[in-house]
Amino acid sequence: MGSAKISLFLRQMAGNTFGTLFRLTTFGESHGVAIGGVIDGCPPGLNIDVAYIQKQLDKRKPGQSRISTPRKEKDCVELLSGIFEGKSTGAPIGFVIKNESQISKDYNHLKDVYRPSHADFTYDKKYGIRDYKGGGRSSARETACRIVGGAIAAAILPDIKVRSFVSQVGSIKVEEQNVDLENIDTNIVRCPDQAIALKMIKLIEEVRDAGDTIGGKITCVIEGVPAGLGEPVFDKLHADLGKAMLSINAVKGFEIGSGFTAVELKGSEHNDAFLPNGKTKSNFSGGVQGGISNGQNIFFNVAFKPVATIKLPQETINIKGDAVQLEAKGRHDPCVVPRAVPIVDAMAYLVLADHFLRQKTNQI
Amino acid sequence: MGSAKISLFLRQMAGNTFGTLFRLTTFGESHGVAIGGVIDGCPPGLNIDVAYIQKQLDKRKPGQSRISTPRKEKDCVELLSGIFEGKSTGAPIGFVIKNESQISKDYNHLKDVYRPSHADFTYDKKYGIRDYKGGGRSSARETACRIVGGAIAAAILPDIKVRSFVSQVGSIKVEEQNVDLENIDTNIVRCPDQAIALKMIKLIEEVRDAGDTIGGKITCVIEGVPAGLGEPVFDKLHADLGKAMLSINAVKGFEIGSGFTAVELKGSEHNDAFLPNGKTKSNFSGGVQGGISNGQNIFFNVAFKPVATIKLPQETINIKGDAVQLEAKGRHDPCVVPRAVPIVDAMAYLVLADHFLRQKTNQI
Amino acid sequence: MGSAKISLFLRQMAGNTFGTLFRLTTFGESHGVAIGGVIDGCPPGLNIDVAYIQKQLDKRKPGQSRISTPRKEKDCVELLSGIFEGKSTGAPIGFVIKNESQISKDYNHLKDVYRPSHADFTYDKKYGIRDYKGGGRSSARETACRIVGGAIAAAILPDIKVRSFVSQVGSIKVEEQNVDLENIDTNIVRCPDQAIALKMIKLIEEVRDAGDTIGGKITCVIEGVPAGLGEPVFDKLHADLGKAMLSINAVKGFEIGSGFTAVELKGSEHNDAFLPNGKTKSNFSGGVQGGISNGQNIFFNVAFKPVATIKLPQETINIKGDAVQLEAKGRHDPCVVPRAVPIVDAMAYLVLADHFLRQKTNQI
Amino acid sequence: MGSAKISLFLRQMAGNTFGTLFRLTTFGESHGVAIGGVIDGCPPGLNIDVAYIQKQLDKRKPGQSRISTPRKEKDCVELLSGIFEGKSTGAPIGFVIKNESQISKDYNHLKDVYRPSHADFTYDKKYGIRDYKGGGRSSARETACRIVGGAIAAAILPDIKVRSFVSQVGSIKVEEQNVDLENIDTNIVRCPDQAIALKMIKLIEEVRDAGDTIGGKITCVIEGVPAGLGEPVFDKLHADLGKAMLSINAVKGFEIGSGFTAVELKGSEHNDAFLPNGKTKSNFSGGVQGGISNGQNIFFNVAFKPVATIKLPQETINIKGDAVQLEAKGRHDPCVVPRAVPIVDAMAYLVLADHFLRQKTNQI
Repeated sequence: MGSAKISLFLRQMAGNTFGTLFRLTTFGESHGVAIGGVIDGCPPGLNIDVAYIQKQLDKRKPGQSRISTPRKEKDCVELLSGIFEGKSTGAPIGFVIKNESQISKDYNHLKDVYRPSHADFTYDKKYGIRDYKGGGRSSARETACRIVGGAIAAAILPDIKVRSFVSQVGSIKVEEQNVDLENIDTNIVRCPDQAIALKMIKLIEEVRDAGDTIGGKITCVIEGVPAGLGEPVFDKLHADLGKAMLSINAVKGFEIGSGFTAVELKGSEHNDAFLPNGKTKSNFSGGVQGGISNGQNIFFNVAFKPVATIKLPQETINIKGDAVQLEAKGRHDPCVVPRAVPIVDAMAYLVLADHFLRQKTNQI
Repeated sequence: MGSAKISLFLRQMAGNTFGTLFRLTTFGESHGVAIGGVIDGCPPGLNIDVAYIQKQLDKRKPGQSRISTPRKEKDCVELLSGIFEGKSTGAPIGFVIKNESQISKDYNHLKDVYRPSHADFTYDKKYGIRDYKGGGRSSARETACRIVGGAIAAAILPDIKVRSFVSQVGSIKVEEQNVDLENIDTNIVRCPDQAIALKMIKLIEEVRDAGDTIGGKITCVIEGVPAGLGEPVFDKLHADLGKAMLSINAVKGFEIGSGFTAVELKGSEHNDAFLPNGKTKSNFSGGVQGGISNGQNIFFNVAFKPVATIKLPQETINIKGDAVQLEAKGRHDPCVVPRAVPIVDAMAYLVLADHFLRQKTNQI
Repeated sequence: MGSAKISLFLRQMAGNTFGTLFRLTTFGESHGVAIGGVIDGCPPGLNIDVAYIQKQLDKRKPGQSRISTPRKEKDCVELLSGIFEGKSTGAPIGFVIKNESQISKDYNHLKDVYRPSHADFTYDKKYGIRDYKGGGRSSARETACRIVGGAIAAAILPDIKVRSFVSQVGSIKVEEQNVDLENIDTNIVRCPDQAIALKMIKLIEEVRDAGDTIGGKITCVIEGVPAGLGEPVFDKLHADLGKAMLSINAVKGFEIGSGFTAVELKGSEHNDAFLPNGKTKSNFSGGVQGGISNGQNIFFNVAFKPVATIKLPQETINIKGDAVQLEAKGRHDPCVVPRAVPIVDAMAYLVLADHFLRQKTNQI
Repeated sequence: MGSAKISLFLRQMAGNTFGTLFRLTTFGESHGVAIGGVIDGCPPGLNIDVAYIQKQLDKRKPGQSRISTPRKEKDCVELLSGIFEGKSTGAPIGFVIKNESQISKDYNHLKDVYRPSHADFTYDKKYGIRDYKGGGRSSARETACRIVGGAIAAAILPDIKVRSFVSQVGSIKVEEQNVDLENIDTNIVRCPDQAIALKMIKLIEEVRDAGDTIGGKITCVIEGVPAGLGEPVFDKLHADLGKAMLSINAVKGFEIGSGFTAVELKGSEHNDAFLPNGKTKSNFSGGVQGGISNGQNIFFNVAFKPVATIKLPQETINIKGDAVQLEAKGRHDPCVVPRAVPIVDAMAYLVLADHFLRQKTNQI
């Protein structure tokens, strides 16, 4: 067999499974027939609430508000197995979400061009081929399957409440004391501080109207996590949360508890003193110590870069290496964080469900 | 079998293996006979330079300078298998590092006390037992085995150069333009800017003399990475780098490329325009696009919290839940980042070697 | 959380994924909406021949001949992703096969009864619940997904030819010298010796007419395997083939090369002398030495027990433990081996494709 | 990087880890410094009885009787971690066994020769290099590490009793009714029927004196397995047992329960009728139904080929492909089964401990 032939063989994709005991495997391209996945390791006897899964999908779906992409996609999930009379049976849960809004002509002008800060160039280098229609697996459409997995993971953890919100867009940010987690879904930007939310929406609209995009930050707060989750060497709880978040499209940073501010602190300031009730006075640890949850709230921040697709002209090159100018058409979000909130929630639930099953003690 | 018995059975540790194809499994407690590990999936024919491995171990070992713990440990590695006439054979490489400086009495006063921001409380909650002598597996001594794994991983990647340095201690930080990576090892704090290094050393000494500790930041720069490493959905290259770094003791945050500053940027500012030579004009991406390396330098920051062991009195509780005051004895570092530099290097090499083997195309 | 609740949580199914680099994950129950799966790790650029996949499915499907179950099921596969213009893209391939012939009333009389030598009793003990309609995941319908996986695995291995045939039914067996692998599909029992095939068919019909069932043996011959496949310690090539075959419903034994006859042989009789062309004079090894293929033909036997569902009255118990008499209704095969031939082929291809990707050297 | 270089990179060994939750990773060559391993996922609180581990090792060690190789090796295990005051802590257990009897000159005459039915040829084809001194990883010395893993696995399963014995050597075999499992260790061939044992010993001595070797069969009986172990699709209990056994050096076949005799039986003969106590009247199933243990005794047979090293002259080729005659020197066993008995026990315990931890329900 010649080496040219071999080279083809060696460029397969891998890494489409997440988790150790509670495992989500996903498949599907944004412009194919359907996307979908399989959840293996789901315990039996859980109430599988299809309406709840759909509600989470709706939070992520395109076209949901005036600050998201105008592209419309219904994103209806069909559960194919592993469920009997509304309850999980313990068998693997297969599901599909049909694709509906594949206007492939939107992408024809991109066939030979590497869009700046997209995955076009790297896919080409890695695989030697490129699905220029919607980005193939690099499209954020794949994250819809994570939502399904996360919603089912949540059913394993009735006492745990994961709630994420947009804490910053551009330089507009919330102050911690003004955050009421009950208010996250009261506005289209998913920021619990109404006054700040209005400013964020205004900024996103301005940026959009200028043909540009803007970055943002999501903060996630997790209540009700029992002490003891996390495997203390390589699979520390916050290491797995970090990997989960960094695997979401457009994420550039992750910090837990004190995060990057810890760099400037002294041990005497940063240490979380234990109180006689087993709780801690402060929570710089962010609910995780030595890689294991300590029963306090877990909280972390996730940094998202601005969406790479802008309507302003950009310098770039084509596949021959010639300089070309690019003007994007397509239908894209001016700011990714409002629609990324349910994805952060889902990934957090996936990590927690996996570690919950890995821990499985009767202390919990 | 009674449920009490079962509950015991369910609290095993897991997660002592890192990697997919290039796999490091570690074992050992800081106060036992030895620590060690097995490297599986190492290609044959590599020159295994024991002196280089030992040099990396020496950068991590305690007692190496006046700003590290005075505890002394030789940390001599013995390679037991998988090597023939100085070259790897492809078989698994087993290794041990004997423990030498186990002054267990140092820890007796801690037997019943939960030290703030340590793993005492969480280990107790997770396992129901606690090895109070040196922290068992939660001790950073385990990272010596990562150094061995990373040094062997580096042999797979002769064209890739990973270099980390201390970029911040407390509020003292380097400016990017003053960084010459050749100068990292010219001082004991491992900061390439000599003037800043002196200030960092002075700060660490002041903090130490006050019985306190201080946080810090390490920046890692990776040159020579070919385009194409990384699996684009869950196992994105920067997601695996993030997990690797967050699994190091005391790490609270990870950011790649623009990181948290991306939150405030617009797409028109953040996008990395392609130049006709295939390089990019800017590198906000940090060398990774869509989870795959693009051939530019990879760089990321890692935030370390201040060491939790301080000599100042602290409020805490004992295992009965009674409030007690703690005054640490032991021998600990006032700032962890100088000794953490080779650990960051090692973890980066482990991730890259694994993804290199996962990619294995003849483009590289 | 009470212990009753926990006990529920701990009974999840796992093990629905096969393979290390070329991975098949399956889902679906025989009486649900659909069965299906995901193939991850499939290299790009392969011609995916849907007609070939369907042809393999048709060899397995019920109702195909007068000696198989009269139950009819079309078993049409739909490929949902990972394929572009007839070629694999390297992305995961999701697929579904809709269920059509779910006559659940067939099973109502079995609701509270443990059928002898079925999985009813063990599922009940393991999961605490039982899907009495068609056996849930224990139904051999799951193997249709293995056919799809195996057919795609075969596309990775154009030079390798896996061919299985029925070598024994009851005490009627073929003689090695009368086997011409080209003749396997010339009769409905899939035995390449026409005279023996007729006797087998007659025996199966007699057994069926008596309301009984009969065991059988499948022999698999694999030509064109290059030397070097197999990982020599735990993942020996024949160990993985053995596991693959033993995971097929109704299999009770596996032997490679000389198999159980090796017990009675001497080293001087059994050793395969090397000839100057690198081939061996005899092939008692069955093409694998030290867990690694040696370039000779691989051949092995797989023993299948008689189908457990018979129409004769049987003593058994119900879920309360009371003795009851069972008379099966349903529609079942009198002998499983003719329809199991394509399943053995598929599992062999899955193992070989996985080891081919694990080996990936330029010798191949 | 040139393709020659790459080809080297791609020939690494893998597959040195066994198990899913209870995981044994081994390393070491027969002629190196030491062999050893790491057991990860071991529950805490187990009594780790070093004397018991050593006793199992002694059953496998060379030089133990007049029918085993005269080579002597003490095989003393050193446990390095994961144990505190005689009990497992839940942390990984690292261990080493030093090599002592490496008379490498024994092997010099084999440097360029491919021994028939050994792994010399296949290692060379797979790795492009060969450790001719003792076979490297292909040596059965590696199985000493499996003994250590199995002995610790046994501590997890106090109610389960695994006992293997030699049931056949050449054509001399035991009758089922004459087997008393208490008598296995009463003779050097490990056959519980004393009269048959004497015949086996005599045969082995005759074969040895003739410079030849002989095959054999081991039967394993497992009592006390609770119903419910095994994952029903790919990871069926008997599929994992089969893989475990087939991964032992020299094994050519595996059958559970009725095994290959099932081929000739009818369903009405083979079905195991349930009795009102939940037990079965017969046990053709061998204790496993649908891949899950049913609470009856598990039993299976393992076929071993004759040892490939014989003292009679043999035709073979050297690495250049020239015909040469080989006369082995070395020190080898005339029949492998007596020393393989503890290895079969160990592998069975490893599989059961892993599935026990995978099952973990409070029914057990």
